[in-house]
Amino acid sequence: MTDIDDLVARLSRLEDERDIARLIASYGPAVDAGDPGAAARLWASDGIYDVDGWRMKGRADVRAMVSSAAHQNLVAKGCCHFLGPCVVTVTGDSAVAVCESLVLVSDGPDSGAYRVWRATANHFTLRRSEGQWKISARHSRLLDGSPDAHALLTRGLEGSD
Amino acid sequence: MTDIDDLVARLSRLEDERDIARLIASYGPAVDAGDPGAAARLWASDGIYDVDGWRMKGRADVRAMVSSAAHQNLVAKGCCHFLGPCVVTVTGDSAVAVCESLVLVSDGPDSGAYRVWRATANHFTLRRSEGQWKISARHSRLLDGSPDAHALLTRGLEGSD
Amino acid sequence: MTDIDDLVARLSRLEDERDIARLIASYGPAVDAGDPGAAARLWASDGIYDVDGWRMKGRADVRAMVSSAAHQNLVAKGCCHFLGPCVVTVTGDSAVAVCESLVLVSDGPDSGAYRVWRATANHFTLRRSEGQWKISARHSRLLDGSPDAHALLTRGLEGSD
Repeated sequence: MTDIDDLVARLSRLEDERDIARLIASYGPAVDAGDPGAAARLWASDGIYDVDGWRMKGRADVRAMVSSAAHQNLVAKGCCHFLGPCVVTVTGDSAVAVCESLVLVSDGPDSGAYRVWRATANHFTLRRSEGQWKISARHSRLLDGSPDAHALLTRGLEGSD
Repeated sequence: MTDIDDLVARLSRLEDERDIARLIASYGPAVDAGDPGAAARLWASDGIYDVDGWRMKGRADVRAMVSSAAHQNLVAKGCCHFLGPCVVTVTGDSAVAVCESLVLVSDGPDSGAYRVWRATANHFTLRRSEGQWKISARHSRLLDGSPDAHALLTRGLEGSD
Repeated sequence: MTDIDDLVARLSRLEDERDIARLIASYGPAVDAGDPGAAARLWASDGIYDVDGWRMKGRADVRAMVSSAAHQNLVAKGCCHFLGPCVVTVTGDSAVAVCESLVLVSDGPDSGAYRVWRATANHFTLRRSEGQWKISARHSRLLDGSPDAHALLTRGLEGSD
């Protein structure tokens, strides 16, 4: 016998996972368009973005990073923040997601080539608030042999914070 | 109280998104296998594929592109059209999707290396016809700093045509 | 009129596809963390992993590959096994999935660059056993122009073994 409440719960779980995958897949297009608002909106108002120890806190910090000369110069050259499919684990109004990502930068208008500048492990914690999933923390570590990057991947696959 | 019609609508939405993600994820394998038919079938019969201003119209044009010596030479060398996870927005029988993509080409049999030749912004509009989603237009622009590429990403995230 | 059994079947199909996509998206993080157990658990106990003719059989072989000095050296340098979104075809308790993948390796701590070492066609067959999807066979062939790689892509898109 099928319980309708059970069906609804299963459907809601798929929707949560879809919402989170969609949120994370939006990051690359937002920052590669150089759009500070679109990137900042992915985070909770007190959300954290920690890249190799550089710690941004809150949407204003994410907005400032995308608006910075450093980032806008990358965009002007041609860059691609390429995030892979993520593995999502939802628990009530919290979730963990993990994926790997690349950053590519054009070698110049006539080069016909992009350099892979970074390859990174990404661990996200997410929170549902007022029906919307947002990033509460993203930790990103370069895949350069450092145990920190490996720990992010392992914890992400386990669904641990 | 749960309304069954509402459940069906939510389920159908997830299926639409799945169908569209699957269609777009099929592009790379189709063209890297050098299979003109498999690539052409992803488009509507009057569908458009505009790559940096080169405008293909209809399945015959897509088929001709994949069959061309230029494309078949890439396939013979070893190429990889790598599309990332897409962000899909469905509205009834229409949809918009956005993703970024890479094209990699082998540097030669003994090089042990692939060159990233292109990194691209992709904006898709899709249409459901006779129960099947097909691409009505794909616009692709190189991520070389051009505002056109940025506009595709921004419109794609907004779900705008 | 909506049949509840039909709804359940549609929902279950989406869950199967989600489970399989999640399984495949776990491979990169598992091997890039250098975690032999996490990688081996993705396979059925008698599962096969055939990479360019190197045939591993069973979880112990996958575990041994990830534990090997060759693999652990890659992890220590910094590597990224980047699998793209897969196209999944489920038929009862069996499934086929196809995706392309890249392997990137750091050019060294001060290089600020990763080399794309491999670009690969991947064909998976999967099986549900005791409610869990596992890989029964993964065949991977380098995209170097070889017809074997093309055949994997074509069969994967067709949902054929």
